[in-house]
Amino acid sequence: MSDASDIPPETTAVQPAPRRVRGRHGGRLGNTRRGGATIEQMPWRIPVNHDRPTEPLPPDSVARMHDVTMRILEDVGIEFLHPQALEILRRTGGCTVTGENVRMGRDFVMEMVGRAPASFTITPRNTDRTLPIGGNFLLFGNVSSPPNYWDMELGRKVSGTREQCRNLLKLTQYFNCIHFAGGYPVEPVDIHASVRHLDVLHDKLTLCDKVVHAYSLGAERVEDVMEMVRIAGGLTHAQFEATPRMYTNINSTSPLKHDWPMLDGWMRLARRGQALVVTPFTLAGAMAPVTMAGAVAQSLAEALAAVVLAQVVRPGAPCVIGTFTSNVDMKTGAPAFGTPEYMRATQMTGQMARFYGLPMRSSGVCAANVPDGQAMWETEHSLWAAVQSGTNMVYHAAGWLEGGLIASPEKFIMDCEVLQQIQRYMEPEIWDCSDDALALEAIREVGPQGHFFGCQHTQDRYETAFYQPFLSDWKNYEAWQVAGAAWTPERAHAVFHRILAEFEPPPMEVAVAEELADFVARRKAEGGAPTDF
Amino acid sequence: MSDASDIPPETTAVQPAPRRVRGRHGGRLGNTRRGGATIEQMPWRIPVNHDRPTEPLPPDSVARMHDVTMRILEDVGIEFLHPQALEILRRTGGCTVTGENVRMGRDFVMEMVGRAPASFTITPRNTDRTLPIGGNFLLFGNVSSPPNYWDMELGRKVSGTREQCRNLLKLTQYFNCIHFAGGYPVEPVDIHASVRHLDVLHDKLTLCDKVVHAYSLGAERVEDVMEMVRIAGGLTHAQFEATPRMYTNINSTSPLKHDWPMLDGWMRLARRGQALVVTPFTLAGAMAPVTMAGAVAQSLAEALAAVVLAQVVRPGAPCVIGTFTSNVDMKTGAPAFGTPEYMRATQMTGQMARFYGLPMRSSGVCAANVPDGQAMWETEHSLWAAVQSGTNMVYHAAGWLEGGLIASPEKFIMDCEVLQQIQRYMEPEIWDCSDDALALEAIREVGPQGHFFGCQHTQDRYETAFYQPFLSDWKNYEAWQVAGAAWTPERAHAVFHRILAEFEPPPMEVAVAEELADFVARRKAEGGAPTDF
Repeated sequence: MSDASDIPPETTAVQPAPRRVRGRHGGRLGNTRRGGATIEQMPWRIPVNHDRPTEPLPPDSVARMHDVTMRILEDVGIEFLHPQALEILRRTGGCTVTGENVRMGRDFVMEMVGRAPASFTITPRNTDRTLPIGGNFLLFGNVSSPPNYWDMELGRKVSGTREQCRNLLKLTQYFNCIHFAGGYPVEPVDIHASVRHLDVLHDKLTLCDKVVHAYSLGAERVEDVMEMVRIAGGLTHAQFEATPRMYTNINSTSPLKHDWPMLDGWMRLARRGQALVVTPFTLAGAMAPVTMAGAVAQSLAEALAAVVLAQVVRPGAPCVIGTFTSNVDMKTGAPAFGTPEYMRATQMTGQMARFYGLPMRSSGVCAANVPDGQAMWETEHSLWAAVQSGTNMVYHAAGWLEGGLIASPEKFIMDCEVLQQIQRYMEPEIWDCSDDALALEAIREVGPQGHFFGCQHTQDRYETAFYQPFLSDWKNYEAWQVAGAAWTPERAHAVFHRILAEFEPPPMEVAVAEELADFVARRKAEGGAPTDF
Repeated sequence: MSDASDIPPETTAVQPAPRRVRGRHGGRLGNTRRGGATIEQMPWRIPVNHDRPTEPLPPDSVARMHDVTMRILEDVGIEFLHPQALEILRRTGGCTVTGENVRMGRDFVMEMVGRAPASFTITPRNTDRTLPIGGNFLLFGNVSSPPNYWDMELGRKVSGTREQCRNLLKLTQYFNCIHFAGGYPVEPVDIHASVRHLDVLHDKLTLCDKVVHAYSLGAERVEDVMEMVRIAGGLTHAQFEATPRMYTNINSTSPLKHDWPMLDGWMRLARRGQALVVTPFTLAGAMAPVTMAGAVAQSLAEALAAVVLAQVVRPGAPCVIGTFTSNVDMKTGAPAFGTPEYMRATQMTGQMARFYGLPMRSSGVCAANVPDGQAMWETEHSLWAAVQSGTNMVYHAAGWLEGGLIASPEKFIMDCEVLQQIQRYMEPEIWDCSDDALALEAIREVGPQGHFFGCQHTQDRYETAFYQPFLSDWKNYEAWQVAGAAWTPERAHAVFHRILAEFEPPPMEVAVAEELADFVARRKAEGGAPTDF
């Protein structure tokens, strides 16, 4: 199991088989090829959030929020729709189980939550991509789970396909600012549900070498994905379980309920020492109170209930508390995202996650249907709320549209431009106040008649002084017009095709690739997973 | 002169003539008319920034930044291209004047800066629109000074006209989230430069009743505008000078230089007790060091030099320190806006403005040429930097494109949607943790099987619980498609025409209107202002 103190990440003792070549794609190394065909993106890095969190709640509000969260758990209870989970919780002696309703005393809750590490690592098949979860690390993942797809070429919304899913996985791997591969970047509904997880995980594990996720949708899927991640990493079962190699994310069925498939996957990953993210989907005014504090308290209660279960199943299980608290449009009931209320709910949840000593997840989200101005201001609001709240894992950070019902490659690429800028924003050299940076001698040298383009102080630094965007167009209007007058999503569409044309999957040992393919073939022959859940 | 302690604003003792009707447009009152033709915007309010500023500089860096700022003023000096200003500064005994170069000892600088009020008010002709400048107040102004115009109907960049300028002034007045009318929202180049200020200020003072600005572009323009603001307010000269009624903004000619027209206007407004904003335009790598700390230090030195002059001319003159520090694209020399470096420079300047005890100005800016995704992420970055830095006056908060070379009504309206959301974000009821807001009883009542739409707690609050956008489209894709599949700027364009069609200017007494028209006619007959400066 992971040690809570092992941040910054160390290479785990268990090494997968050596890989052939590193750094061929995506990094600066891969971008210096002749012709400048690839985009110039930032190298892989683990961003550190240097900003003090924005904390709307004064201390007494934190205490009141905690008290109500505990009273929900103590007095109202959470339903666990899983007999084994109920039995496990009954046996603890800390819970009152009545039918499917479980009430938990606050001392017991806090004791269990206290077992969860404040930080841990997840180690994917490429150990260079090991992720530290917690502390002030800020990590981004791709859009997950939209059933539909939209791009500029189609110009309309269509059901997701495997090819689209593969293309979005290529973007996930390509962009260094995407740290983990979340759920399916679009649901490939052209693959039968019984074997979909096998095909998509095969695609994901061969196209990506970053941390991956398993949906908690029934025992077979979870077990299959864990086995595939183990095989792809070249790991023994003991090695797989020695430290988190992957994670799941579960959503409660708000209000106050955890369903069977989610709980089943949750416990299976807990038992094998894998990482656990619980994200209640508490839309204020629909599945949660219309007041944001109430929606956050309910979300915390639902999340902590799952954390308690994980800690009972495996003390010290690495858990992340997620937030998806937003509001609905009270005129239509439609969910809204990136709203002022969403931002404050995320910040409040951040305060409470620190209070409970748990890493936090939030999201990059919007309600917009196309990658336009609204899409970007809503997504910006959700991303800055992630920064302000001290979020550690940002789900859906690239590619999300229509409240999560559409995945779009243009939006993915636009979001990556923003994510890179957030990463750059966190680089302390920008606010360096050394003598060199304060530049008094350069100011004296240039004086009131000169300019700084030519001075030595500039010449020594200009190549790396400033963030260079790959998608923002800083040309003046006339030059932009001559270059084709492309609006942002059109430019993103062109970048999308350039990346696809040049994409090469990360290396994988032939023996590993064969074992993975054999596993998929065997499990397909066995019929995959049941589809009647 | 303004009293530094009179925030929140009080109605000044001097009242303009009573107005006929209030609140007919722009507020909720005006939006309840049948047919729902007007947009539903937020009522006028003075936003209070409740967030603790983001402060990248540790205390020793603040001290180092201050030291270098002072050494620039002490050792390098600032050029004042204005003989009278030089003479005024020479006489203080605190400056060393060598030709046009003025060096200032830090004790003298700090003594003079200490005279400037930490906060003050500006009272426009509609005293209900009085603005508190400083503290944690956060105010927004329209785009100022682009020579060009772009809208969706034209689909191209054209030189500004009076009609476009008037239309943008109508937006400035219409939107309650726009608190002050900055410079010309587009430069009407179809009016001769000698009389342009007369026509535009006449338009501005009749179409708007909010705080207005005078360009410091020669004695005649400044004096004309002060006189017109006095007339429009129905004020005697003594009343005009009793408290700030308007303001100017000057830019230094970086590096290290203040030009004659700017200094001349600066001193004229100082003498008459009007508000003064100084905003060096320090593009790192061009007019300032390539390192952001150096660019900020130079900007501070240039700004403080002007503040010193104002305090010598009139002790206690109300001054605001502005920042326009950004970086250039080092490949092309083009200015970039809303970059990570811009954000951190704004935050650093905010820390230093608080160190010097001065209100602060920053901007809502972007490099994008059209109102697309890039325009919004860059503008969002600059607006959140304004929030994070503790900025008091946000210039160019609505309507800016192409690094300030284009004004666009669609961008104006898109920005107002974001400004409203920032205003809503600052409303403490969102993070209220009263028993009512924590909603334990509602959670108990609804339980795990229900939903919150119908419960009393929701019914009592749903109409005002959440921010309601006027431009964001929260419909799902299919409903959005049926409604015309309009992207954000298309929707903004439609809103633009609805506002123009329904706009009614704020009331003005007939006698005041006649006096204002007479003044314009007389000054035009006199030839207006010389155009050879």
